[in-house]
Amino acid sequence: MNAFAQRLSLRWPLIQAPMAGVQLHALTVAVSDTGALGSLPAAMLSPDALRNELQAIRAKTAKPFNLNFFCHEEPAPDPAAEAAWLATLRPYYAELGVDPAQAGSGASRAPFGEAAASLVEAFGPPVVSFHFGLPPPALLQRVKATGAFVLSSATTLDEARWLQQHGADAVIAQGLEAGGHRGHFLSGDLSRQAGTMALLPQLKAALQVPVVAAGGIADAAGVAAAMALGADAVQVGTAYLLCDEATTSPVHRAALQGEAAVHTALTNLFTGRPARGIVNRVMRELGPLRGAPHPAFPRATAALAPLRAAADARGSGDFSPLWSGQNPRGCRAVPAAALTQALCRGFDNLEPHS
Amino acid sequence: MNAFAQRLSLRWPLIQAPMAGVQLHALTVAVSDTGALGSLPAAMLSPDALRNELQAIRAKTAKPFNLNFFCHEEPAPDPAAEAAWLATLRPYYAELGVDPAQAGSGASRAPFGEAAASLVEAFGPPVVSFHFGLPPPALLQRVKATGAFVLSSATTLDEARWLQQHGADAVIAQGLEAGGHRGHFLSGDLSRQAGTMALLPQLKAALQVPVVAAGGIADAAGVAAAMALGADAVQVGTAYLLCDEATTSPVHRAALQGEAAVHTALTNLFTGRPARGIVNRVMRELGPLRGAPHPAFPRATAALAPLRAAADARGSGDFSPLWSGQNPRGCRAVPAAALTQALCRGFDNLEPHS
Repeated sequence: MNAFAQRLSLRWPLIQAPMAGVQLHALTVAVSDTGALGSLPAAMLSPDALRNELQAIRAKTAKPFNLNFFCHEEPAPDPAAEAAWLATLRPYYAELGVDPAQAGSGASRAPFGEAAASLVEAFGPPVVSFHFGLPPPALLQRVKATGAFVLSSATTLDEARWLQQHGADAVIAQGLEAGGHRGHFLSGDLSRQAGTMALLPQLKAALQVPVVAAGGIADAAGVAAAMALGADAVQVGTAYLLCDEATTSPVHRAALQGEAAVHTALTNLFTGRPARGIVNRVMRELGPLRGAPHPAFPRATAALAPLRAAADARGSGDFSPLWSGQNPRGCRAVPAAALTQALCRGFDNLEPHS
Repeated sequence: MNAFAQRLSLRWPLIQAPMAGVQLHALTVAVSDTGALGSLPAAMLSPDALRNELQAIRAKTAKPFNLNFFCHEEPAPDPAAEAAWLATLRPYYAELGVDPAQAGSGASRAPFGEAAASLVEAFGPPVVSFHFGLPPPALLQRVKATGAFVLSSATTLDEARWLQQHGADAVIAQGLEAGGHRGHFLSGDLSRQAGTMALLPQLKAALQVPVVAAGGIADAAGVAAAMALGADAVQVGTAYLLCDEATTSPVHRAALQGEAAVHTALTNLFTGRPARGIVNRVMRELGPLRGAPHPAFPRATAALAPLRAAADARGSGDFSPLWSGQNPRGCRAVPAAALTQALCRGFDNLEPHS
């Protein structure tokens, strides 16, 4: 019997990683119904949209699910950095025939705040996960008062200890292989971050709370390997990107299935924070990691959005964030239930719970 | 029964990673006698010293062992780059009271060549491994004609395919967690390199020859995880650095046991090629990766050597290459046989061979 699965009333200790921008409740429900933990990423949803998604989940399944939030600090506008970024992109606007006046401004992703806390209180998701640390104590307390099991990601041993000390009920060891945004919140020095094979055992040895393995895990063998390393549970993201229930765009789906997917990099071009994606034209030409002045997360998104839309419409991912972990070979264009069941064969040594 | 162990007449499919500069035959013999594959790194030995080491191995054990060579191209001297490097280091020379005239020049490590090939022919090591690709065809042919099983490291899928095509009998998947020199030889773009959890399954899916897992594997759980991922064999380096038979320096041993060991980085300061070591003063102050002009591998070593010697004598690792993988917590100050036996508990699902 796996204590993590038992605690969360799961059949298997598998978490579908929340992936903002490429999924809504359909993926959450499909995974949770299979007996693993489906996740709903809230970061890119307005409060109204989030309420609709939560209502849909509650209408469609009684199984536990995970509601995920970003908890970065909202940055002040920085007109100089935003202007510099737009200026850098101007030749691309010209090439694609897009009017730079279309570049928006503002933030594409909101941190966990009052409205979100109220929705957590109203809907009572069994699990709430945070990325980029934890929210301020008063907000976190509101979440914990609902009885939610609280998860957050650590990229280093220091972050893992901090999360345990500040109220996380379990810590996700986010290995460097993982796709999407790095979850660091104590240090931006990327060289401090390690691969799953190295990070997970170090966290497991140091923490009392359960540790969830994430990063590079894409099939049953990967799940078995993570459990052999001592993980209490396993989180898988990239492998779900081609599933029927994901809203992954056609250019993103094509990229994941192409030879280019073998080469990912950490880039801050798309949002202002480092995230792992398949190397594409804008990453190659501007370099994946841009130093100051560059708009702070998430304000870098606005200036790229019109280019992305124009290129995307022509079937090109040259300006899209093609988030992917370093192991895209687990991606399968199947229903999420089938993928979840295939992944859970990695738990063959465990008795299923419930 | 594990086919790799059977093929090489090993009890267990475990390879002690060759670690130039921190071991001689004593470690090789201790590991091989335990039933795993001990390795002897030849890169920093003169032909005479190498002959002595090989005679010692042959005198002390009849078990199979691995003889490892670097096969980089010997760079032409580049006086301008070497002068620039020395100039950068001048303030440290002043601080330590060392005369810059003591800075040597020349190469600290020789690539596999005529003399080495003759020693392979004379001693017939059962396994010969290469780092940085494979030697030129005529030299490789001489090695293969002895019946040696040939190994080399790949950091990407492209390199793995290349090695298989050019005569490697097995390929080491060198995950980004691994300590010491990165083995890349087709591209110097470090962003192409992935963690073990992602690299190993991709190589295993693409190759016909056996795949050896390396990088971040430090204890029996790591060994079991690598085997669960599909590895045919496992290579462990860092965990051996504190063993009685290793020649690891006192400052290096101290660093591996300190809190600082949690933070490693890839650096080209010490040799001219990227290698993973514990972040120390010179890496912090100069930045770990120095762009041109910087002497090509291995010619960067000469200018640092007097600083290293002076600091080392004072018990400081400020200028030493403190090679380590990202998972130093498997390091144990025990006889290598004890560490090897502990690691091999990760093979509990395998029948031991012979």
